[in-house]
Amino acid sequence: MKTAFVLSYLGTRYSGWQRQENALAVQQVIEEAILKTCGQRVALSGCGRTDAGVHAKTYVASTQLESGIPLEQLPLALNARLPSDIVVCRAVAVPDSFDARFSCKSKEYTYYILNRKTRDPFYVDRAYFYPQQLDVAAMQQAAGAFEGRQDFRAVRNEGTPVKSTVRHMFYCRCGRQGEMITVTCCADGFLYNMVRNIVGTLLYVGRHKIEAALLPALLAAGKRVDTGPTAPACGLYLTKLEYGMEQLDG
Amino acid sequence: MKTAFVLSYLGTRYSGWQRQENALAVQQVIEEAILKTCGQRVALSGCGRTDAGVHAKTYVASTQLESGIPLEQLPLALNARLPSDIVVCRAVAVPDSFDARFSCKSKEYTYYILNRKTRDPFYVDRAYFYPQQLDVAAMQQAAGAFEGRQDFRAVRNEGTPVKSTVRHMFYCRCGRQGEMITVTCCADGFLYNMVRNIVGTLLYVGRHKIEAALLPALLAAGKRVDTGPTAPACGLYLTKLEYGMEQLDG
Repeated sequence: MKTAFVLSYLGTRYSGWQRQENALAVQQVIEEAILKTCGQRVALSGCGRTDAGVHAKTYVASTQLESGIPLEQLPLALNARLPSDIVVCRAVAVPDSFDARFSCKSKEYTYYILNRKTRDPFYVDRAYFYPQQLDVAAMQQAAGAFEGRQDFRAVRNEGTPVKSTVRHMFYCRCGRQGEMITVTCCADGFLYNMVRNIVGTLLYVGRHKIEAALLPALLAAGKRVDTGPTAPACGLYLTKLEYGMEQLDG
Repeated sequence: MKTAFVLSYLGTRYSGWQRQENALAVQQVIEEAILKTCGQRVALSGCGRTDAGVHAKTYVASTQLESGIPLEQLPLALNARLPSDIVVCRAVAVPDSFDARFSCKSKEYTYYILNRKTRDPFYVDRAYFYPQQLDVAAMQQAAGAFEGRQDFRAVRNEGTPVKSTVRHMFYCRCGRQGEMITVTCCADGFLYNMVRNIVGTLLYVGRHKIEAALLPALLAAGKRVDTGPTAPACGLYLTKLEYGMEQLDG
């Protein structure tokens, strides 16, 4: 039976989602829990790669699984074997054609910037501590430039080759609540380090190192050197996924 | 010069505030940072003992200090030597008569209960995961019984001897926001494990193991066996202090 797992994890201890040699990945930890619980060796297909230190409020991974354990009991059984920073929230039966990555219609990432003078012990590894003063109004204006269907190669780091660097950004918003500034990006797909580069660029706008009004031209020119640095992983959270299936959408 | 430090710390790694043998206390870590930064061995007087694993959004400690470093530069200098889970927010000159414990007019503690079916990786060691269904309306009603000036020996664990078990509770409130239930207690002082026992008692009320209407009588009878168990330390935060001094009040 094709099974999708809705997960949540704190990424601090992990090298990211994807299994790799010489580093502990979230995928490996969950596959081992499934092996011990269900007696079956599986290869999970995840909704995307997350980098080392990136968090997921929600994450979907799928696999063929014949465990004999009723789906509604599977989360509890798996969580008993998982470390406390990874949780299986739900296990859901999906059509055989389902694939966690390719069936996903949109993903939302939220980036947290702690903008105050002294660091906060409660946000270590959970937000980007940024003590400099920021012009949030300028950042809000600039965020709009990332919306729509366009080529995002100016905010893409070199990594795995992709067929196209065009993506559709449904919304890109920036706002402040007290000491916390958030950047929320929702698109049909993301390029390597795209959100972290958008955030780095918005931070440059907030410090007037890049003019908000110039951003559309910089994006059109498509040169990575024109945009801001890659913001650190610890502030980044995968926050919403849309599959058009009530039980998976977060 | 008598100096007060406004601190904030995540208590998970520590045996509590107070220095002790064979365990790492917050007091010791800060005193060592002061010694290295100011070249002076001090004995900090804290606003109260917090237990192992208890957190402080705000905490005040005072000492005589002749460092030569301007007070406004002291937090940055100390934070450079402190681990990331302890932060000095401010250093303030106070009268010689000031004592972090005895000058404190009121303290507020907030207790966080994560009430949902599966655990949440983002609240490990930061809230009490409590998956059972709770009658929050009954808990809210019951919380009122802890308000006012009264004898709290029914919710006190045996520990250091005290002259009196009477305290003035200015407010004791319980509420729910989504999956998080909070209990907020503000009093002129607290007995050993008092908040955690109040929370344990309210959880018993929420599960109908204790009738909310019976609480005033149980408190008046003053028997610890009649009230609920001690809730775990991880959900407890010191959240507000009142000294009647703008720079210290949190």
